[in-house]
Amino acid sequence: MVDILHKVGIKTPSDDRVFDALTTTEGLAGWWTEDTTGDAGESGTILFRFPPGGFDMKVVEVDPGRRVVWEVVDGPPEWIGTTVSFDLRREDDYLVVMFAHKGWEEPVDFMHHCSTKWATFLLSLKALIETGAGAPSPRDVKIDSWD
Amino acid sequence: MVDILHKVGIKTPSDDRVFDALTTTEGLAGWWTEDTTGDAGESGTILFRFPPGGFDMKVVEVDPGRRVVWEVVDGPPEWIGTTVSFDLRREDDYLVVMFAHKGWEEPVDFMHHCSTKWATFLLSLKALIETGAGAPSPRDVKIDSWD
Repeated sequence: MVDILHKVGIKTPSDDRVFDALTTTEGLAGWWTEDTTGDAGESGTILFRFPPGGFDMKVVEVDPGRRVVWEVVDGPPEWIGTTVSFDLRREDDYLVVMFAHKGWEEPVDFMHHCSTKWATFLLSLKALIETGAGAPSPRDVKIDSWD
Repeated sequence: MVDILHKVGIKTPSDDRVFDALTTTEGLAGWWTEDTTGDAGESGTILFRFPPGGFDMKVVEVDPGRRVVWEVVDGPPEWIGTTVSFDLRREDDYLVVMFAHKGWEEPVDFMHHCSTKWATFLLSLKALIETGAGAPSPRDVKIDSWD
């Protein structure tokens, strides 16, 4: 089992804006993919779609202002059953997001790709909150021939 | 043990330019940190310096056009003894870089930070080759209060 781990610090006085960006389809559409539908509340299922495909995530935990956990229930085979979590904490001027995408069975090429890609999306979340403009798919940062 | 893994695809007809950017101090200064000195050839030691500190890397493997491996011999305690590797392969229009920073003892906060930061530096390498301008320290992408 191998994990993708990341950290960003978002310079904002508002913890709520970051939490909303993780727990509403409108918020998620502002930094991950514009084509986000479904129910982002606890026990809901969120449908994230990208030009090459997509992921269905079951929301397994929502701890207001502190933690959000999703389980991948449909998508590429390597993703199914993995979990994606966001742990939030305040450090002075920053709302810190500790990110984990856990449960990969093998460190395949696609995992390397997703690790880099997650970093760009977390920086998109940071930009969304700090500047008002994220870079969600299809306007996302391209990292390789897989997009 | 936990690893940081990334992948970028650099759109270039020149494998040599990417390899040079990993094996010369001038090349490394173009995407990781402007303050790069030492000897980037096999068995050499490269000194990377950033405003908050730096790393000394021993070059343990150089396989021309294919692979570069460094071992961290001085720097933050969490980094000492870890290895950083770049595996290169061509896929059509892209020179693919598979990156690994292995040997972290624990998935500490600093590892999360470094994972995200490595992604930004690999995209800096991609930009250097594709556009002629990377974003090395101190002009690097800032991700949190740790820089």
